[in-house]
Amino acid sequence: MAATPAVSPLAVPLPELEPVAGVRLAAGAAGIRYSGRNDLFLAEFAPGTTVAGVFTRNKCPGAPVDWCRAALAGGSARALVVNAGNANVFTGAAGRVATQATAEAAAGLVGCASNEVFLASTGVIGQTLPHERITAALPQLHAALSPGGIEAAARAMMTTDTFPKIARRKVMVDGTPVTLMGIAKGSGMIAPDMATMLCFVFTDAAIKPDMLQLTLAKGAAESFNCTTVDSDTSTSDTLLAFATGQSGQDVSFSVPFKIAMDELLLDLALMVVRDGEGAQKLIRIDVTGAADHASARRIALSVANSPLVKTAIAGEDANWGRIVMAVGKAGEPADRDTLSVAIGGVWMARRGSVVDGYDEAPVVAHMRGREIDIAIDLGLGGGAGRAWTCDLTHAYIDINGSYRS
Amino acid sequence: MAATPAVSPLAVPLPELEPVAGVRLAAGAAGIRYSGRNDLFLAEFAPGTTVAGVFTRNKCPGAPVDWCRAALAGGSARALVVNAGNANVFTGAAGRVATQATAEAAAGLVGCASNEVFLASTGVIGQTLPHERITAALPQLHAALSPGGIEAAARAMMTTDTFPKIARRKVMVDGTPVTLMGIAKGSGMIAPDMATMLCFVFTDAAIKPDMLQLTLAKGAAESFNCTTVDSDTSTSDTLLAFATGQSGQDVSFSVPFKIAMDELLLDLALMVVRDGEGAQKLIRIDVTGAADHASARRIALSVANSPLVKTAIAGEDANWGRIVMAVGKAGEPADRDTLSVAIGGVWMARRGSVVDGYDEAPVVAHMRGREIDIAIDLGLGGGAGRAWTCDLTHAYIDINGSYRS
Repeated sequence: MAATPAVSPLAVPLPELEPVAGVRLAAGAAGIRYSGRNDLFLAEFAPGTTVAGVFTRNKCPGAPVDWCRAALAGGSARALVVNAGNANVFTGAAGRVATQATAEAAAGLVGCASNEVFLASTGVIGQTLPHERITAALPQLHAALSPGGIEAAARAMMTTDTFPKIARRKVMVDGTPVTLMGIAKGSGMIAPDMATMLCFVFTDAAIKPDMLQLTLAKGAAESFNCTTVDSDTSTSDTLLAFATGQSGQDVSFSVPFKIAMDELLLDLALMVVRDGEGAQKLIRIDVTGAADHASARRIALSVANSPLVKTAIAGEDANWGRIVMAVGKAGEPADRDTLSVAIGGVWMARRGSVVDGYDEAPVVAHMRGREIDIAIDLGLGGGAGRAWTCDLTHAYIDINGSYRS
Repeated sequence: MAATPAVSPLAVPLPELEPVAGVRLAAGAAGIRYSGRNDLFLAEFAPGTTVAGVFTRNKCPGAPVDWCRAALAGGSARALVVNAGNANVFTGAAGRVATQATAEAAAGLVGCASNEVFLASTGVIGQTLPHERITAALPQLHAALSPGGIEAAARAMMTTDTFPKIARRKVMVDGTPVTLMGIAKGSGMIAPDMATMLCFVFTDAAIKPDMLQLTLAKGAAESFNCTTVDSDTSTSDTLLAFATGQSGQDVSFSVPFKIAMDELLLDLALMVVRDGEGAQKLIRIDVTGAADHASARRIALSVANSPLVKTAIAGEDANWGRIVMAVGKAGEPADRDTLSVAIGGVWMARRGSVVDGYDEAPVVAHMRGREIDIAIDLGLGGGAGRAWTCDLTHAYIDINGSYRS
């Protein structure tokens, strides 16, 4: 077995860590699957916290996803409980018992209704979640809650992740500073929709649940839903945003807040791609000239999901013929004879055939780098779209051929 | 780089090789890309030979695919020219010049119209085909034509294939023996539709072109179009059938002939999967209880194309949770709580949760074998469908990270 790197070469450093008013966190070791590391965190939110969520479209979602979808109707959140090591997916009635018991235990500690408790689990599918280990650990976590617990929380939910994923935005709204902190985990089983496993955003902004939902869904569409690691859509994907209102600033109609949310989500989505299992290169695919935006996005994702494109890039081979293939297989409007392809800004193929005598040297240099840019112009219409992915390497196979063993 | 096996462990031996009356073949070395091996073959058919074809649905097909689609309208075939090493795809006007010149050269040798010449090319995309090397080699091939040339032809069109793919059926129709011989090449860039690169069937049956087309299309739908290696659909996929009529037996309404064609195509399609790049295991996925047949087939292909399912099988891990994920991501009607999954005939999950105490030993033994059977019952309706694929191993990445270098 080839060595899997301890930390992705595409990792990004942690931002400045700042408490979010009204959010306290604590992490601990419940011994769900791993030993010698934290695998559980609890977050507590101030009264009045609003919540919004976007979830996997997989038809076989985990029990925590069902729980959150139902709880979201209330629009109010007081706690979040997240574990790693067991996804509580395809666990039948036992899965529902586990979510109910966990939520009730957290509600009892925080002093709220159980539908104000949100849940997420990540890890192995199909094994009963030993929820009694979670409920046994929660009192100690509750006693340890602190405003500074965000890094420990981000680390506690890691599975095959090689680095913790935290993003921060600070924005002025009507002269009041508003903070957004987000954490994410995800590395494999990453595809739209949603291209994440777990992501949580905490802000001290004040915003009604329906406006928060609109902002979150729009931001997810242009970030997590434009990324893929392996075309496999998780059964647990959960993106939740919690707004405590403690800044006293209503952001319901704030453009700067929406921009900050978009940027924060894109930061986190790209961190997940950068930590894609075995990733050595981050790949951006820009499609222009498509029939419309949706078509452009589907073509970009077809290229992003092509194993032959991804292995070629792992081999630093500027194999634009495979890009042509992946455009053509998308099933979207495309005309071979108006199609152009560029790598690293150099157009290698224009309107259906190779550009004679294009300069290979900058392309070769670009392929050796960590960030690969592919541009595709369909020459048909005004539709544009973008997708991100990573290369497909031996380490992906190492990680996934032996995940449970 | 890990060693790539010289021959797939899933290879099947050659059948008894039998000439097909009215078909003569010859192979040779045109030096298109490879050195020290044959890379070109010519087949000549007796006057009166009918032809049918099924082609890639990729929107960026190669010039030879365009050529064959147009030539098929005539319904008559006298020659077939096939080269390896260069696919003549995305080559613009030069690609059309190459097909025209090759067809005219073959037509001149055989003494037929150029639209009775069929063409196929496989290999690298985006490089101009040096067709003058083909036209220069054709006279020598024409002089060497022989009824026994089928194995040499099958070998001449190999690219990353590790074994030549030939299948044979002999069937009695109204007391007359009819022969079918088929050859195929394909290893990567294999996905519906069509899940092959090149496949040619030769028979001495007599059959009108439209009946041959119907038989071929139906056979392809249940064979090549149910298989995938890597979800990448080639731009060159070509399946052609040539019926010389030399047996004197009309098979237009013969059930035994249609069954023989179905079996022959399935043999060849499974040979392509068995030679999937890096394949160590052949995987069959049976879906039952789906909303309808099309839905079952799409779910089977979603599982067959899942990198996480394929890497787990490479690792001999009976990870049925990933199968659940891949069912759920297909976007087809599915209900987690009626879903059941079996591996090697052992139902590990029934109606939404794990089967407590199922016997792991036979599953572990099954996973160690070369042929893996997955069964999925959706518990919804009467739709059933099947797909075949292979596992995803390090060798796939070795082969595709360095194909052009």
